[in-house]
Amino acid sequence: MASSDASALPFPDWMAQTQARTEAALGRFLPAAETIPQGLHDAMRYSALGGGKRVRPLLAFAAGELCGATAEALDCVACAVEMIHVYSLVHDDLPCMDDDVLRRGRPTCHVQYDEPTALLVGDALQSRAFEILAAQPWPSPAQGLELVRLLAHGSGSCGMAGGQAIDLASVGKSLDQPQLELMHALKTGALIRAAVLMGAHCGTPLAAAELERLDAFAKRAGLLFQVVDDILDCTASTATLGKTAGKDEAADKPTYVRLLGLETARQLADDLRRDALGALEGFGPRARRLIELAHYITTRKF
Amino acid sequence: MASSDASALPFPDWMAQTQARTEAALGRFLPAAETIPQGLHDAMRYSALGGGKRVRPLLAFAAGELCGATAEALDCVACAVEMIHVYSLVHDDLPCMDDDVLRRGRPTCHVQYDEPTALLVGDALQSRAFEILAAQPWPSPAQGLELVRLLAHGSGSCGMAGGQAIDLASVGKSLDQPQLELMHALKTGALIRAAVLMGAHCGTPLAAAELERLDAFAKRAGLLFQVVDDILDCTASTATLGKTAGKDEAADKPTYVRLLGLETARQLADDLRRDALGALEGFGPRARRLIELAHYITTRKF
Repeated sequence: MASSDASALPFPDWMAQTQARTEAALGRFLPAAETIPQGLHDAMRYSALGGGKRVRPLLAFAAGELCGATAEALDCVACAVEMIHVYSLVHDDLPCMDDDVLRRGRPTCHVQYDEPTALLVGDALQSRAFEILAAQPWPSPAQGLELVRLLAHGSGSCGMAGGQAIDLASVGKSLDQPQLELMHALKTGALIRAAVLMGAHCGTPLAAAELERLDAFAKRAGLLFQVVDDILDCTASTATLGKTAGKDEAADKPTYVRLLGLETARQLADDLRRDALGALEGFGPRARRLIELAHYITTRKF
Repeated sequence: MASSDASALPFPDWMAQTQARTEAALGRFLPAAETIPQGLHDAMRYSALGGGKRVRPLLAFAAGELCGATAEALDCVACAVEMIHVYSLVHDDLPCMDDDVLRRGRPTCHVQYDEPTALLVGDALQSRAFEILAAQPWPSPAQGLELVRLLAHGSGSCGMAGGQAIDLASVGKSLDQPQLELMHALKTGALIRAAVLMGAHCGTPLAAAELERLDAFAKRAGLLFQVVDDILDCTASTATLGKTAGKDEAADKPTYVRLLGLETARQLADDLRRDALGALEGFGPRARRLIELAHYITTRKF
């Protein structure tokens, strides 16, 4: 993946190859379906395998390429971040949260299995993410420990879980743009940022100023992802999205489209892409995959 | 705590001091209630502070004393293990699981707050446990990474969460003693074992044979804890337990008392205590707190 062969691939091929690589690595890093308790492991594999855009793994691989990381190290980091993402989807879909029945074009975990199983699937996917990071033979244990710290911080109450709490508390309220931005910086942004920083952390250390620019990219890319998500939620169909369309509106949730209108939200997405790309200037061709991903995140259809 | 002063204390005083020390450390390691999002942090602190026997922290400190660990290192490990335990209680009490309203003599988290908050409290406590382990200045990063690995393995689908999955699948079924033992070895035993091994791992490394004996103690102590829990569930009152008594029976769950009868279950507890203490022979006075804890776990009233 990080070889010169891979870097010559056109973006769609690189993306497909990285997605397939992530799928295969997830299959290895998850306990086998035959491992006791089989029911739980089967449900973990159902939830994590066989779909998804794998945006966070793609970002981890792209940032890893920027820093010359090995594909093996990136497999582990990509899977850890994706396991956290999948656990958050499984818990988000539960009846007491978004109560959703469709995810990645298939029945959600609690519909396919049952609610207690979905609760435990999320819990166990989170533990597994940290376990695979801790069990990997990193060149230095300090590197592994920093990866655990980045992922735990991005997932927790000052990251993704904290953003979900703000999201819940804001149903039916009108947030202003800074409040909406804080919510999304935590809910979606924190884990996307962790994916980029963890990918970079697998390679040759960046200078402080470079790391700052990469972080600036990651923050803008995270917000961009969410603005586009809001646009798609009200413009795309359920069939295209593979999840229920229009549900933010139906749930009376604040979104960028509601706050700004569709056209201004589209303008904001373009501005964020420009700023994200601006942060990558100076990295040269090493940033190619990150640049391509910023375009992909902006123009994606689901 | 690990000083010679502390080791001279009578057991009840040592226990009270270690519980108070753990409470204070949890207060420091949890985000402040004023940190955004305040609602989530308030609920995390409500769930983790102000009660509990702190059996896992006590075991971590006792094993740490055996190995000459510092109290500061043990504070971190004790809090990480306890955060995992508390998250499992918060999720276990949810309506889709045990649907319980009382915990540690107070309303459960989803009763005091609401279900989505309780779900996020559990999720965020798990992340926080790994974050504090990863952020601690360990003498060697390899030590920190091994602590993460031990905790993640003990919590996950081949540990605590796996045991809960077997527990759910066994409602209304009659398990034989080996099946019941496997369920409890995972559900309760895995995290108790992690507490002991992590405490020991904070100090001077044990020889392989010593570590094996400590692990044998931990396995028996974990099972002992569960057998006594089953006995208390059918003999103690809700007021004494601080949680709903008789709920295993009401939920048609397999327990040692149902399988063996009360008297044979009590005999099994005595046998497990004897075996646990036997595993500690050869450690001499260094094992004092672990020995005292084996007696405490057997004779506790709640």
